Amino acid sequence: MPPNMAEPTRIWTAALIVIGDEILSGRTQDKNVAQIATWLNVQGIRLREVRVVADDEDAIVEAVNILRVRNDYLFTTGGIGPTHDDITVDAIAKALGVGVEVHPDARAILENYYVTRGGLTEARLRMARVPAGASLIENRMSGAPGIRHGNIFIMAGVPHITAGMLDRLTGTLEGGLPVLSATIGCWVAESEIADLLGQTERAHDGIQIGSYPFFREGRTGANFVIRSTDQAVLDQCLADLTAALEQGGWAVVAGGI
Amino acid sequence: MPPNMAEPTRIWTAALIVIGDEILSGRTQDKNVAQIATWLNVQGIRLREVRVVADDEDAIVEAVNILRVRNDYLFTTGGIGPTHDDITVDAIAKALGVGVEVHPDARAILENYYVTRGGLTEARLRMARVPAGASLIENRMSGAPGIRHGNIFIMAGVPHITAGMLDRLTGTLEGGLPVLSATIGCWVAESEIADLLGQTERAHDGIQIGSYPFFREGRTGANFVIRSTDQAVLDQCLADLTAALEQGGWAVVAGGI
Repeated sequence: MPPNMAEPTRIWTAALIVIGDEILSGRTQDKNVAQIATWLNVQGIRLREVRVVADDEDAIVEAVNILRVRNDYLFTTGGIGPTHDDITVDAIAKALGVGVEVHPDARAILENYYVTRGGLTEARLRMARVPAGASLIENRMSGAPGIRHGNIFIMAGVPHITAGMLDRLTGTLEGGLPVLSATIGCWVAESEIADLLGQTERAHDGIQIGSYPFFREGRTGANFVIRSTDQAVLDQCLADLTAALEQGGWAVVAGGI
Repeated sequence: MPPNMAEPTRIWTAALIVIGDEILSGRTQDKNVAQIATWLNVQGIRLREVRVVADDEDAIVEAVNILRVRNDYLFTTGGIGPTHDDITVDAIAKALGVGVEVHPDARAILENYYVTRGGLTEARLRMARVPAGASLIENRMSGAPGIRHGNIFIMAGVPHITAGMLDRLTGTLEGGLPVLSATIGCWVAESEIADLLGQTERAHDGIQIGSYPFFREGRTGANFVIRSTDQAVLDQCLADLTAALEQGGWAVVAGGI
């Protein structure tokens, strides 16, 4: 690198493992990918890869051990409830080569939560089990906490519970510059402006332009999302792309269609 | 295996790679996982794993080469449009070690489609490119076809276009017995019936019971999904689980809540 060139900003990455037969069977529409991706962006962390795996120990272990090593952070959702198909804690402990233990604070939280709900049964106590050495992530929506072990964050499958856990983690993870984005839309077939998009992207360093076509009410359109970690570069690219589209005769809708 | 035991039915599996920065950024809520999972079930094929990867050649190549080998079928969605960020065909060709060629039938389809839409430009011709040796999957919603190469099915990112391609493939893939399912629901915290669920699953061979808790209007409930490839086994398990829940004092809602 030439001595006068600034070192590029470090990019912080995360992976997500969505654990659950209900997603793979098509029964449940996942909402955690979009929710966690959006939250990570604000923390300056990029979601680089997602895997959806079954409630299957081998599948979870494989995914955990690959993804935790090659990303700064690994999130999982699902499989931390009290029933027989909730095997996430055991699988992650196995992946890490550690035992499973009842976390005393988690036990206390559950004891307190279930005082008015029939008491802490054997099944409910399962939700206090963590991979040995873990700490807890507060769950403000219901009893059972999330779990942190090193760079692994074990979250609930129910999206609004995970939302509460993410809220609790906001600002606590080291990240880089957040990815900024700007969106514009045109009533145009993307194939008509494909060259223009590619040229515009190449003309602006550190910019990515995504093209997302759609069909509504019998008409063809596309939204273009410009992404950068630098506001000035983003603004310049937005201005240049807008001008180029308008010069081509297409009306540009700021914010997207 | 004892000679009088029937050989277990072969299970056919598929993997899915969702390709696109828009999913990983949280901008777009994926709908193809649930759609393809549901469709595969009807074909007697189980969706075993899903990966969401960026518009990045190395990431696509890695996922393709692992998943196509260990599953009967591999589906991909996204990245087959005309713009610079559409790199799926090139990445899959690289993974397979084959070249990229313009498929003559795809070119003819696009020439015809664009007759009244401004003609076949260079950018649009990109959508006729396939990994060498591929065949086409008809796209009845718009011009550009899907692509089949061996056990790999390359589909669109826009869900309703993929729906049309899936419809075209219905009944053409070899599969096993479809997975049958039955759902019941109770207004109960799943932790109260966790043991009952586990016992019921263990008492019925070849059965899987998933437990899916929810919170609505301040009340706690759960749906239980029983899955089997054998209707008689499914019916028996459904009857036994319903009886056990009712014996425990919980009202059972057939079909789920």
